[in-house]
Amino acid sequence: MQFNCDMGESFGPWVMGNDEAVMPHIDMANIACGFHASDPVHMHRTIALASQHLVRIGAHPGYPDLQGFGRRAMALSREELFTSLLYQMGALDALCKAQGTSVSYMKPHGALYNQMMQDDAILDTVLASAAAFKPHCSVVVMAGVNDDKCRQLAKQHGGVPLLFEAFCDRLYNDDGTLVSRTHPDAVHGSIEQVINQVRGIVKHQTVTTISGKQRPLKADTICLHGDNTHLLQEIARIKDCLKP
Amino acid sequence: MQFNCDMGESFGPWVMGNDEAVMPHIDMANIACGFHASDPVHMHRTIALASQHLVRIGAHPGYPDLQGFGRRAMALSREELFTSLLYQMGALDALCKAQGTSVSYMKPHGALYNQMMQDDAILDTVLASAAAFKPHCSVVVMAGVNDDKCRQLAKQHGGVPLLFEAFCDRLYNDDGTLVSRTHPDAVHGSIEQVINQVRGIVKHQTVTTISGKQRPLKADTICLHGDNTHLLQEIARIKDCLKP
Amino acid sequence: MQFNCDMGESFGPWVMGNDEAVMPHIDMANIACGFHASDPVHMHRTIALASQHLVRIGAHPGYPDLQGFGRRAMALSREELFTSLLYQMGALDALCKAQGTSVSYMKPHGALYNQMMQDDAILDTVLASAAAFKPHCSVVVMAGVNDDKCRQLAKQHGGVPLLFEAFCDRLYNDDGTLVSRTHPDAVHGSIEQVINQVRGIVKHQTVTTISGKQRPLKADTICLHGDNTHLLQEIARIKDCLKP
Amino acid sequence: MQFNCDMGESFGPWVMGNDEAVMPHIDMANIACGFHASDPVHMHRTIALASQHLVRIGAHPGYPDLQGFGRRAMALSREELFTSLLYQMGALDALCKAQGTSVSYMKPHGALYNQMMQDDAILDTVLASAAAFKPHCSVVVMAGVNDDKCRQLAKQHGGVPLLFEAFCDRLYNDDGTLVSRTHPDAVHGSIEQVINQVRGIVKHQTVTTISGKQRPLKADTICLHGDNTHLLQEIARIKDCLKP
Repeated sequence: MQFNCDMGESFGPWVMGNDEAVMPHIDMANIACGFHASDPVHMHRTIALASQHLVRIGAHPGYPDLQGFGRRAMALSREELFTSLLYQMGALDALCKAQGTSVSYMKPHGALYNQMMQDDAILDTVLASAAAFKPHCSVVVMAGVNDDKCRQLAKQHGGVPLLFEAFCDRLYNDDGTLVSRTHPDAVHGSIEQVINQVRGIVKHQTVTTISGKQRPLKADTICLHGDNTHLLQEIARIKDCLKP
Repeated sequence: MQFNCDMGESFGPWVMGNDEAVMPHIDMANIACGFHASDPVHMHRTIALASQHLVRIGAHPGYPDLQGFGRRAMALSREELFTSLLYQMGALDALCKAQGTSVSYMKPHGALYNQMMQDDAILDTVLASAAAFKPHCSVVVMAGVNDDKCRQLAKQHGGVPLLFEAFCDRLYNDDGTLVSRTHPDAVHGSIEQVINQVRGIVKHQTVTTISGKQRPLKADTICLHGDNTHLLQEIARIKDCLKP
Repeated sequence: MQFNCDMGESFGPWVMGNDEAVMPHIDMANIACGFHASDPVHMHRTIALASQHLVRIGAHPGYPDLQGFGRRAMALSREELFTSLLYQMGALDALCKAQGTSVSYMKPHGALYNQMMQDDAILDTVLASAAAFKPHCSVVVMAGVNDDKCRQLAKQHGGVPLLFEAFCDRLYNDDGTLVSRTHPDAVHGSIEQVINQVRGIVKHQTVTTISGKQRPLKADTICLHGDNTHLLQEIARIKDCLKP
Repeated sequence: MQFNCDMGESFGPWVMGNDEAVMPHIDMANIACGFHASDPVHMHRTIALASQHLVRIGAHPGYPDLQGFGRRAMALSREELFTSLLYQMGALDALCKAQGTSVSYMKPHGALYNQMMQDDAILDTVLASAAAFKPHCSVVVMAGVNDDKCRQLAKQHGGVPLLFEAFCDRLYNDDGTLVSRTHPDAVHGSIEQVINQVRGIVKHQTVTTISGKQRPLKADTICLHGDNTHLLQEIARIKDCLKP
């Protein structure tokens, strides 16, 4: 199981996250590309840090909205979205190549990620941009919601590889979506809950939903939230639980 | 002789230049990369236009200053400049690749171009970024000012290919720099003056300076200004004068 | 009848509109405030032009989205919207005061205007910001859609004065909304249609809708589109038709 | 003696400083205005915090450069600088008025502050903008460098009130400028040094320079750096040392 985490979210003089502490524990670094967070200097430094820890690098493009951190829904045209994704992936890739590495996948950020999972036209544009970017560029999508639709659209773009993603510290609805953050139980409060959810996903390909049901969930990667300090301190324990 | 022109300088709803009219007449399109002008949509469309007319594509990166159009000097650190150049070149290159073409050279824009020709440390950073971007990526520099210094620095970065550039509608000082735009004769007012200057550059590798002297000027490319409508209408005549 | 027009929409080196030609013919200048268009220099110059022609100055705030010109819907929180409106109105007002004039009304721009007419929470925030900005600051809203709701909300904010606005070159639906721009007849093609619509609004407080019905429409101001050159050339004729 | 501190420097999701801890201890809050730091939401919240602690509010305008935090020198024209200062002061003032308070002074930020103290034309533009903004708007300038020149220029703009500022944790050169941060002793390492410098400034109107000389320094306000945690913890002790 691959653990992915949003990285490189500092901007100019402002620090976000604790990349140096997190990087050694993850497998995939989703690096912000300057539209919702980061800037060329922080992208460059984050690439260096990922390379040092042999962590796979992915582009983490978002809406052009620094103040809103890409979390505010925006109505971009298909051409605007397609080209802004290529722009961001290309910018990160050039900075990677200058350090002898490269972008191997992309994961949309924030409101774009949410809208992609609800609107096929947006998902289609995301997949089209990955296909146009480079061969074999994977796209991270949320597992368990509309997996078949994702696979079908990916196929239409020449077979874009998909990485289905699960969340380890979020409670799931019965339909596979995440319980809204406004709900008191939306985020798991104890590390035991997190470990249980990870174990379920990894060993049984299931997740316990809000109503207590077991729902199938086949995931290729699990998302860690870098701002969950509690969680990060326990990454080692989480990884241990995955060992045979 | 290759003619280069700044292209793709529209931004969002704002139009600049007359790219469709100019593109058929030039050899090299310096495409703005979103920091001082352009945006992903206009970059994408300008690439399509250049491809259609078989015009070579160069990155035209600038300072991060849309309001000032990259014409206001800014004090960037070496790391800030190096990474912002890679960022811009990479963004444009990804949009190129999606259309089956690629960036083959770069020419810094506005205040960055001016500062590069006056400050070796900045020129060095520009050359380093081109070398780090991709092999054989040429850099456009101003001809006739400090050609040897340029060649020497380019050599230190693994032999970055240089394209020395001359200006066809600007009056030259005796030392090879351009007469300041505040001078009444800074820009040639008649097409005959322009044609004479082009002929001198192409046939005799010389330019007539403000004091009437002939100064040697070896150029690989001549810059056209897209906002000089008068000039553009006469491009055909200029090109004719170059025929044997 | 007061004619209002969006003004000061140039940005940095990019020119939009023809403010010098339009200003003498209008009564109210809606000046962009730097978030979706304009910048401090253009705001300053547009204020000078409006003052010279004794044109009333209004703030024309928009979403923070230059590339999208404020036409892309964005999901701002109430606090984000409220404070960004005050910010923009205050910025324009300080530039006005430096020239001995002041902002007397505000009209939201683009997607914000559209969303305000569809979502009471957004309209409420707009009205709250005007009330917090200064006493007697009017707000321009679209006439004929939900006039009573507008008046009711304005009352809740201490009686914010409303300016109901009609459009002279757009076709109306039977419910008082505008026919979508995707419809071939959305924008009146002939000046006669425009004059007829103005005459109907001014003399009879009615508008002819897409189905040919007469719908009541009480307006305080009519919006001119500065990019409709055809229309602007005929402003004199339009104004003539209003004379007794 | 009034203590001033830069406040409201958070931006979007990024936190900077510790405004809640610092505000109770200062007399003047220099609030960033959205160009180099802050945004309408953070300005609004910082105004509320200042009001709660009865702290005087000043505008802290900077260059339009978020990534560089306004610390990169930029070459703005007089019109660009004059209007951008009015824009920022007006934006903050409108947010103040909505809370029943107002901007009473301004202090330029970062590179603009440094350039103002070195270039009379920039100082003149800053003073002109304060005079145009509102009567009696004070301007904070550095004490002890060219006080007479400052007073003379302020007089030319109708007598703009000046607040001469001293630094409590920075070492001074013999000419009254600050020792460059590249020097190992540029920033005082011990709280005793800071207290000594404050005592000298307050009680004797002098400061000990790098060469050990006593240099006259008449200051109206002392700048605290909010990022100097060590310093902030000792503000109480510093203030104690000022009591008779």
